[in-house]
Amino acid sequence: MTGTLHGIGVGPGDPELMTLKAARLVAACPVVAWPAPLEGDSFARRIAAAHIRVDATEIAIRMPLAADRFPVAAVYDEAAAAIGGHLAVGRDVAVLCEGDPFLYGSFMYLFARLADRWPTRIVPGVTSLAACAAAARQPLAAGNDTLCVIPAPLPDSVIRARLDGCDAAAIIKLGRHLPRVRGVLEAAGLLGRSTYVAHASLPDARVAPLAEIDDAPAPYFSMILVHRTAGVPA
Amino acid sequence: MTGTLHGIGVGPGDPELMTLKAARLVAACPVVAWPAPLEGDSFARRIAAAHIRVDATEIAIRMPLAADRFPVAAVYDEAAAAIGGHLAVGRDVAVLCEGDPFLYGSFMYLFARLADRWPTRIVPGVTSLAACAAAARQPLAAGNDTLCVIPAPLPDSVIRARLDGCDAAAIIKLGRHLPRVRGVLEAAGLLGRSTYVAHASLPDARVAPLAEIDDAPAPYFSMILVHRTAGVPA
Repeated sequence: MTGTLHGIGVGPGDPELMTLKAARLVAACPVVAWPAPLEGDSFARRIAAAHIRVDATEIAIRMPLAADRFPVAAVYDEAAAAIGGHLAVGRDVAVLCEGDPFLYGSFMYLFARLADRWPTRIVPGVTSLAACAAAARQPLAAGNDTLCVIPAPLPDSVIRARLDGCDAAAIIKLGRHLPRVRGVLEAAGLLGRSTYVAHASLPDARVAPLAEIDDAPAPYFSMILVHRTAGVPA
Repeated sequence: MTGTLHGIGVGPGDPELMTLKAARLVAACPVVAWPAPLEGDSFARRIAAAHIRVDATEIAIRMPLAADRFPVAAVYDEAAAAIGGHLAVGRDVAVLCEGDPFLYGSFMYLFARLADRWPTRIVPGVTSLAACAAAARQPLAAGNDTLCVIPAPLPDSVIRARLDGCDAAAIIKLGRHLPRVRGVLEAAGLLGRSTYVAHASLPDARVAPLAEIDDAPAPYFSMILVHRTAGVPA
C-alpha cells in the first residue's frame, strides 16, 4: 500500500477561505509539505496551521521568493525525493499550496515529478484573483467579457498587446515591476481603470486606485485589476 | 440595525469545496437566496444544502439557464427588492453563487442593485476553472504564461484572436457553441492541445481530449482548456 499525494489549495490567505475538503485532508495527512522562503515562515503553512496534526512530519520546501527566479529544479528534485520516501511506505502527504495548485502554483513542479509514480489528487482552492476582486468590490469579468491574466515580468510590448486584446485583465507577480507596469497602463489610457490590491482577504489588505500607489516594489501578494468598461452591466 | 448582504461563492459543485467561511455564513443567515432555472432544482442550493438552516426563509431567483439570455433585468429587480426587504428589518441574507461571485457570476447584478444601500460582503469561492484544471490534471498556467478566459458565444474571429494572443486559454459557456468552437481550435492548430471538461468536482465529471467529443450541445457546466505548450516546465 502506497500513500496518496494531495496537492491542496489553501486559498489566498484568510484561513477561513480554506475549503472543507482542504481542512479535512490536512488534518488527515501524517506528512505535510509546504513552500517557504529561504528564511522565515511559510505563508501556506500559516494559512493551514490550525489543521496540521501535532504529530505530523513536516517538510519545508525552501527557495527564493522572487517570482522570476522560479523554478528552482534542484529544490523540487529534493522535495520530490523526500515526499516519495513517505509515499513509498504508505504515508499520505499533503502539499500545501497558496491559492490554487494549478494556477501559477509551485505544486505543478512536484506534480510533474511525482504524479506518474504515485496516486495523486488535486484539491482546487480559492485563487488570489477571486480574493482581490472581492476586496476591490469589482467583478473580474461579466457576460461575454474576455479576461486575461498577465504576469508583470513580461516585456512592455507583450503586456500592452494582451491588454489591448481583452475586456478585463489581472496583472500578477508585480514586485519590482510595478512602476513599469503602471507606465504601460498609463500609455494604454487605462490608468483610471486600474485598481491595486495587496494582501486580499488578510487583515492588512489594501485596495487603492493604481494612480495613488507610489513606486515602491509591490508585495509578492499583490495585483492590478483592470476593466475597460464601467463594470457591471445593468 | 440593518442586515448584511453576503454574496457567497459555494464553489464548483462538490459540497466539500465550499470554504469554511461560506459554510459558516450560510448556516448563520436567516435568509438564503439562490439562482435556479425556470423549473427545477438550484445547483447552488444543492451544493450548500447541508448548511442551510431548517428555519431559513428562502428566495428563489428563477431565470432561463441559457448563458446568452443573461442578464434578465426584471428578475434581478424583483430579487433585489425581496432581499432589500429582509435587510431593512435587520435580517442577514446569504446569496448563494456557483463558483465565485465575481467571475462571470450572476451575483454581480444583485451587487449592482444593493451594495450602495446595504452593508455587503463578498466571500470568494473556488472557480470552475480551478476545478476543471484539477479534474484534467493539467495546470491552467505556469511561470510567465498569459491565460485568457474566453466566452464561447463570442464570434469566431474574436475567439481566434484571443487564442493567438495567449499561452493558455479556458473557453467557457460552451453549450450549443461547442461544434463551432472546436472548428476555431482546429483551424488554429490547437485541437490536439484542447481538453474538454464537464461537471468538474462532481461524481459524473468527464474529461476527454476535445477531438473525441461529439457535436451534441455541451452541458452548462463545461469548458475547454487549451495550452500551447506541453504543460509543466521542468
